[in-house]
Amino acid sequence: MNVHDVISPRNGQRISNGMLQDNYPRNMWWVAAHRDEITEKPLARWLLETPVVLYRLADGTPAALYDRCPHRWAPLSEGHVDGSKIVCPYHGMEFDTAGNCTKAPTQNMTPDTAQIPSYPVREAGAFVWIWMGDPEAINCDPPDVHYQTDPGWSFLSGYYQVDANWVLIRENVLDLTHIAFLHKNTFKQDDWVTPPEIYMDGETVCYEQEFDLAPLSPLFCAGMGLPEDKPIKRKQIGRMPTLAISFSDWNVHDPAPEPDRRSDFVMRGCHIVTPAQRGRAHYFWGAAFDVPGLSHDVAEKTKAGVIAAFDEDKHLLEKIQAQISQDPRGMDYLEVTLGADGAGVRVRQILNKMLAAEGRSI
Amino acid sequence: MNVHDVISPRNGQRISNGMLQDNYPRNMWWVAAHRDEITEKPLARWLLETPVVLYRLADGTPAALYDRCPHRWAPLSEGHVDGSKIVCPYHGMEFDTAGNCTKAPTQNMTPDTAQIPSYPVREAGAFVWIWMGDPEAINCDPPDVHYQTDPGWSFLSGYYQVDANWVLIRENVLDLTHIAFLHKNTFKQDDWVTPPEIYMDGETVCYEQEFDLAPLSPLFCAGMGLPEDKPIKRKQIGRMPTLAISFSDWNVHDPAPEPDRRSDFVMRGCHIVTPAQRGRAHYFWGAAFDVPGLSHDVAEKTKAGVIAAFDEDKHLLEKIQAQISQDPRGMDYLEVTLGADGAGVRVRQILNKMLAAEGRSI
Amino acid sequence: MNVHDVISPRNGQRISNGMLQDNYPRNMWWVAAHRDEITEKPLARWLLETPVVLYRLADGTPAALYDRCPHRWAPLSEGHVDGSKIVCPYHGMEFDTAGNCTKAPTQNMTPDTAQIPSYPVREAGAFVWIWMGDPEAINCDPPDVHYQTDPGWSFLSGYYQVDANWVLIRENVLDLTHIAFLHKNTFKQDDWVTPPEIYMDGETVCYEQEFDLAPLSPLFCAGMGLPEDKPIKRKQIGRMPTLAISFSDWNVHDPAPEPDRRSDFVMRGCHIVTPAQRGRAHYFWGAAFDVPGLSHDVAEKTKAGVIAAFDEDKHLLEKIQAQISQDPRGMDYLEVTLGADGAGVRVRQILNKMLAAEGRSI
Repeated sequence: MNVHDVISPRNGQRISNGMLQDNYPRNMWWVAAHRDEITEKPLARWLLETPVVLYRLADGTPAALYDRCPHRWAPLSEGHVDGSKIVCPYHGMEFDTAGNCTKAPTQNMTPDTAQIPSYPVREAGAFVWIWMGDPEAINCDPPDVHYQTDPGWSFLSGYYQVDANWVLIRENVLDLTHIAFLHKNTFKQDDWVTPPEIYMDGETVCYEQEFDLAPLSPLFCAGMGLPEDKPIKRKQIGRMPTLAISFSDWNVHDPAPEPDRRSDFVMRGCHIVTPAQRGRAHYFWGAAFDVPGLSHDVAEKTKAGVIAAFDEDKHLLEKIQAQISQDPRGMDYLEVTLGADGAGVRVRQILNKMLAAEGRSI
Repeated sequence: MNVHDVISPRNGQRISNGMLQDNYPRNMWWVAAHRDEITEKPLARWLLETPVVLYRLADGTPAALYDRCPHRWAPLSEGHVDGSKIVCPYHGMEFDTAGNCTKAPTQNMTPDTAQIPSYPVREAGAFVWIWMGDPEAINCDPPDVHYQTDPGWSFLSGYYQVDANWVLIRENVLDLTHIAFLHKNTFKQDDWVTPPEIYMDGETVCYEQEFDLAPLSPLFCAGMGLPEDKPIKRKQIGRMPTLAISFSDWNVHDPAPEPDRRSDFVMRGCHIVTPAQRGRAHYFWGAAFDVPGLSHDVAEKTKAGVIAAFDEDKHLLEKIQAQISQDPRGMDYLEVTLGADGAGVRVRQILNKMLAAEGRSI
Repeated sequence: MNVHDVISPRNGQRISNGMLQDNYPRNMWWVAAHRDEITEKPLARWLLETPVVLYRLADGTPAALYDRCPHRWAPLSEGHVDGSKIVCPYHGMEFDTAGNCTKAPTQNMTPDTAQIPSYPVREAGAFVWIWMGDPEAINCDPPDVHYQTDPGWSFLSGYYQVDANWVLIRENVLDLTHIAFLHKNTFKQDDWVTPPEIYMDGETVCYEQEFDLAPLSPLFCAGMGLPEDKPIKRKQIGRMPTLAISFSDWNVHDPAPEPDRRSDFVMRGCHIVTPAQRGRAHYFWGAAFDVPGLSHDVAEKTKAGVIAAFDEDKHLLEKIQAQISQDPRGMDYLEVTLGADGAGVRVRQILNKMLAAEGRSI
């Protein structure tokens, strides 16, 4: 695919979607897992077409190794953690977090060659991030997501394995005009039909859009303590600091708050996508309210609503992926770009640039 | 495969079965669905390796489009019909039956480029027929099947998705000597062991064969009001007007009818096959009696009997397909042609000729 | 793969495991089935990537044919045996054990071309062996396994289909140092950590290893009538006469037998592996005690214990295979050889030599 093909999101431009090949930059932070998923019991997860074992040492330090013993290829994720080592289930070989074999119980010497690739991991916000590319190339921290663990916020989240290429999910969450159609019966926010203008703030893809008085999606009313039918003003702010994560802030202004009630609230959505295998991706969502200590009932109700909506995305994106995979025309069928694809087109530009920097192309 | 390889159905001739590649003519009418299957609720169906959405407008007109929105590839079959338009589930784009986009709700203009392939459809008999090839090449109507909706006949039918190449089904229903073996315990018609002579009537493959007094298969006795053990005379007439459909008429003569009873009856079987995906086909069967108004009980009993028999075909053909697909020898294992393969061999000749006319070959 | 790559099982040597391609010698006896599995009801089984039908004639003679009718490819395993013939389910063609068609019921003549490949089979011990290669090349009998049906022994056995390449199983059963790790909670034999020396006795891979006083694995105590915690002396003897089968003898010496009790026992394990399809193998295990007439209860208890342990192997080997199949690095990831891999390395040497003799290579 030629970079210039996607420079301008012209209305009606027909472009090929080479993006849906399994291409993804390696030299960046991707989310490997929610913090709570990683424990002393090893977790097997495909990340960027690589089998990875994620685990914590006895002292809580997270670690990530290539999930194949160098001896006879047993998955270490079937083994166990012993102090600061992970132990292979097959013949008991032990490895440190750098991937070095520290013990081969069937013999006295420990071969230098018994070495596994290891991956740097970092905890930030509610998630553990992983760098699958060249460790020498690490030139930044994971994006700032400290609000996720800030006690001033209530952070809800969930996870889906989606049988669709990660770009399909990334583009889905950056063009929210689909809410009025795909999520008509769940979000019930039917005023977001005209897309926002997209602009760049450095490397960050951004948009801002204001909406007139209208009831807020019932999905977020409970979290803000608002009645479902009350007209409010809304400002939607979107930001995608990296291909791994984007934010969708719902800034709500209640022009007529009840006595002793706040008039302004934020629901910060976050959409995290990580490539898994061919045509399969991990999708972690977050929904955070700038309201501390949401009750269990409100949290559960909100999560149930969000899940009902995201089930609709998963269903549709998996249908699209299946169609692409099974149709002999596959990706030869040209896509028509609309005005609403401004953010999605920028995703492709960024992706192209990053792949080129890694000496790869689409 | 060389056309000449299949000219003569010589006994014991060894031929390769290149037919089982997914090759099929496009410039002909195939059955897309039973009429009742197509409603305002869109139906997704693979036809000739193409994902197709079948639906009816509010006024009942049937329509067929390529089942991928030109914008971001969502299957229109997940959307809905609104009057004379089908609406994409993702961002609400609307299309007419010619595949033109008539509305893109997220913007004012409607790009000319937003265009989907559409396919001509026709209702004939109990089925909706589709032309997947060049619309300019339409030079005929679907085969005459008006008996299917003639009130003088009682028409029963059913549908199978079969995980086997369509040619395997087509050949199966044209060599009915398998009834005495594969359907020994269901058809119980053990006198059809010698195959009929095959002749051509224009483009139609034909056979006729008379049988001496013998009980009729119990599958068809109820429909004709005959006792199961009564000896009758039988004439089998077969016709295949196109690769899409063949008829198998069971002409029954009761030489000693009960008082006030007819002595002659016809059961017209029809076998409709449509390629779906690689190694997968649609099979629609019909069983029609020239007896008006069969009772519900007789109809259900007859259908149950036919289904029990056709389950045996489906099971065996899927085993054959699985063997072909998994065996490294695949289609390199030569087939031996018998005298009973006369009709099947003509199928291959016709297929070869039609593919050649479309500039394709096996 | 170069033969010299695997000559020396040096500690820490990094080698590619080209063995896990689906390569296997054809000119040797492999086990097709347990004797009891083959009856007059035809059995379909993939052997060396070939669909085979295994059956017995009315007189009990076992036979094996390629499982595809030469006419229209129906699997004969869906048919039935009639005396000395197997009958095709589709059109009733009959074949003798040499694969010659002896009857085609839809016609008078029987074409010479209607011929199916047949495979020599031999019954030896508890199993039926098959020669899938050149019948002219048969130069030996199946390995001597007469103990399996010797009334002086009690022979227990079982079968697994394993979704893993046969070499993974073959190597697993030749490096029993994995017992102390993978089978820690089932075998409970934790003293077998140091591997034995490997030597060749002609073409047979061998090892012998003695163990000090220690309780015997509870899996085998019941079969020998020993209390589970009694310290005994143990000598492990291993032999692999061909790639198809290996033996693992547990020679037990009880230094303080109860009055009127024997002091010496043998449990002869046998591990039989046969390639099935890509990444799939048949695994037959045997456990024989030199104790006649084990009670039903002891036999069942012993089988349950062995099955619990071999379930652990199956689970792990299938995980390894899945990782190899799905990981884009697949077999490019180098294996590190340890001292314990002496027998496994000889397997690769023998395999290389046999493939070379058949004009094939890895």
